[in-house]
Amino acid sequence: MMRTRENRSAEGELVLGVDLGGTKVETSVVDAHGRILASVRHPTEAEQTADEIIADIVASVGEVSRKLPGAEAGGAMRAFRGVGVGVAGQVDAATGSVTYAPNLRWRDVALQARLEAALALPVAVLNDVQSATFGEWSHGAGRGVDEMVCVFVGTGVGGGVVAGGRLVRGCTGSAGELGHTIVDLEGPPCHCGSHGCLEAHAGGWAIAQRAQEAVSAQPDRARALLAAVGGRAAAITARVVTETARAGDPLAQDLMAGVMRALAAGAASIVNAFNPCVLVLGGGVLEGAPELLEAVRAGIARRALPAPARAVQVVPAALGPHAGSVGAAAWLRASRPAAG
Amino acid sequence: MMRTRENRSAEGELVLGVDLGGTKVETSVVDAHGRILASVRHPTEAEQTADEIIADIVASVGEVSRKLPGAEAGGAMRAFRGVGVGVAGQVDAATGSVTYAPNLRWRDVALQARLEAALALPVAVLNDVQSATFGEWSHGAGRGVDEMVCVFVGTGVGGGVVAGGRLVRGCTGSAGELGHTIVDLEGPPCHCGSHGCLEAHAGGWAIAQRAQEAVSAQPDRARALLAAVGGRAAAITARVVTETARAGDPLAQDLMAGVMRALAAGAASIVNAFNPCVLVLGGGVLEGAPELLEAVRAGIARRALPAPARAVQVVPAALGPHAGSVGAAAWLRASRPAAG
Repeated sequence: MMRTRENRSAEGELVLGVDLGGTKVETSVVDAHGRILASVRHPTEAEQTADEIIADIVASVGEVSRKLPGAEAGGAMRAFRGVGVGVAGQVDAATGSVTYAPNLRWRDVALQARLEAALALPVAVLNDVQSATFGEWSHGAGRGVDEMVCVFVGTGVGGGVVAGGRLVRGCTGSAGELGHTIVDLEGPPCHCGSHGCLEAHAGGWAIAQRAQEAVSAQPDRARALLAAVGGRAAAITARVVTETARAGDPLAQDLMAGVMRALAAGAASIVNAFNPCVLVLGGGVLEGAPELLEAVRAGIARRALPAPARAVQVVPAALGPHAGSVGAAAWLRASRPAAG
Repeated sequence: MMRTRENRSAEGELVLGVDLGGTKVETSVVDAHGRILASVRHPTEAEQTADEIIADIVASVGEVSRKLPGAEAGGAMRAFRGVGVGVAGQVDAATGSVTYAPNLRWRDVALQARLEAALALPVAVLNDVQSATFGEWSHGAGRGVDEMVCVFVGTGVGGGVVAGGRLVRGCTGSAGELGHTIVDLEGPPCHCGSHGCLEAHAGGWAIAQRAQEAVSAQPDRARALLAAVGGRAAAITARVVTETARAGDPLAQDLMAGVMRALAAGAASIVNAFNPCVLVLGGGVLEGAPELLEAVRAGIARRALPAPARAVQVVPAALGPHAGSVGAAAWLRASRPAAG
C-alpha cells in the first residue's frame, strides 16, 4: 500500500529536462506524461566556458520554474524530482561526466556531479541522441514497444536503440552511432574520418556537398539548383536539394535517389541487426522530405531479411525538437527511482 | 536463507543443451560452469520429418544420460533441471516454436511445447547463433562483460548481441543477423536475396564463389588455386583460398584482401552501433584464418569512431563447436529460474 502511494506521489512530481547542444540550452519542466509545462531556451556562445554554461543551466532552472502556472506571485520554487540532461557529446554512463563534446569544446566535464552540487537535486546525464530516443520511446512514436530503433537524419545522422525495454548505452555510453554504419566500402569521406558511412551519403552536410560537387561537375544540369540559391553554389543546403527535386529537377532527383539508396541499405542493416518492432525516423532532413520514409519502407522490403522486414513498423518521430528534453526528463525518472 | 539454499541446489543440477542444425543434433549434459559432462551427436537426414527429429532428440536425452559417470549400472535417469535447444532457424521468442528453419524444412513446429510434453521437463528454445552467443557470454570469451557482440564467420555469417547483460532477441526473435549488414551498396548478390551483405563478401560460400569466378576470369593467375584442388575449380573452398593465400599466392591474397576489407567495414559498423566491450569472432573461416582477427582489429582502429574503437577488445571465440549446446543449456538456466 505504502509503495503504491509513494509511486503515485512520485509520478505527480515534475522533472526538469535539459537539452544541451552546440548552439543552445533548452530547459523544460516535464510532467510524468511527457508534457512540457514550461520551457526556456538560451543560445550558447562559442566562447562560453563550461563554467559559464553550467551557471546558465542553473539560472535557466530558476527561470523556467518561475514560468510555471501558479508561480507568478513569487512563491517558493517548486520541488522538482530531479534534472535529466541530454548533451551533444560522449557521456560516461557510470559518472554522468561528459568525456568529449566537440561542439561545446568540452573534455572531461563532471556535469552530473557539478549540477547535483549546484541544484541539490538528483541529476542524470546521457548523450543527446540517446535522450531523444528515450523520449520517443517513453512518450512518442515508440511508446509501448520493447524493441525500438530511432534514426535521426539531420545535418548529421544519429541513432538510438531500445532493446528488451531498456535503452542500449553500450560499454562506454556511445551505443547507437548508426550514422556511421558503413554502407559503401569505397564511399565518400565522412566527417568521422572514415568513409562510406550512412551519414556521408544521407546527412544534411553530405547532401549539400554532393550537390555542390554536382554543380561544379555538371554546370549545365545544375541550373535549377543554382537558381534556387541566387547562383551561389555554397548556399545550397539539403533543403534546397529536396525542394528542387520535388519541383521535378532531374539532377536534384538523382541526388535524392542516392540518398534514398543509402538510407534504404542502412535501414535494412539496422532492421537485420536489431529486429525492432518500430523504426522511428526523425530529424530535419526527414521532416523536410517525408518521401524518404516511403523510400526506407521500400528499401527494407527489398533488402532486409523477410522476417524482420515483416515485423518492423517504420514511423515518423512524434516529438520533433522536444524529444531531447522530454527524453532527458524521462531518463531521470527511469534511472533514479523515487526514494519515496 | 531458504533462497540461498535453493539457488545452490539449482546450480548443482545438470541441464541438457541441444544444438539442432541442418546436418546434426548434438545433445550434451552441461553443468553450471558450462562444462560438458557427456555428449552424443546424431546426423540428421534430409528426409527426416519434424516428428522423427523430435523423437531423435528425446532418444538422445536418454542416451546421453546413460553416458554420465555413475549411470552405467542402469541406475535411474538423472534428474535434469531442463533442456535448452538452439535451432538453426527462426524461433518465436514467446512460445519457443520454430517458425521457419530452411535447412530442416520446418515451418511452425511447436518444438518447445512438444519436447516439454515428451520429456516432462522445462524446455527453452532459441536460435542457434543466439545460443552460441549466449554460450560465449556465459562461459566463453565474453564472460563477465555486460556488452558483447559475437560474429561467427563460417559458411554463412551470423551474429548475436548481449546488451545490458541480456541477450538481445528482438521483436520476433531474429536480432543479430549481422551477416546481412550491407557493407557495399552495389556489392555481389547474397543468398538472402539482397546484395552487398557482409556475408556475400566474407562468408565461406562467398569466398569460394569469388575464387571460382576468378579462376574463370583470370586462368593464368589461378594456377596455384587450381593446383591445390587437382584442377577442379568447383572444389575450391574458403579453406583452400586461405591456405593458398598464406602460401604466398597473389590471386588468393587479393581475394583475402577483399574479405578483410568487408570484415573491417562490417566490424566498424557493429562497433559503432553497439559499442561493445568485447567483440568475439568465431566460426570456421576465422578459425582457419586467424590473421583475419588482426585485420578486423586494424579495420576497427581505422574505420570506427575513436571512443568505441578504444573501448572494444576483439577476441577469438573460446567454445568452438560446443558454443551452441553450452549456450542452450545456459539459456535454460537463465530463462527458467529454478522453482526451488
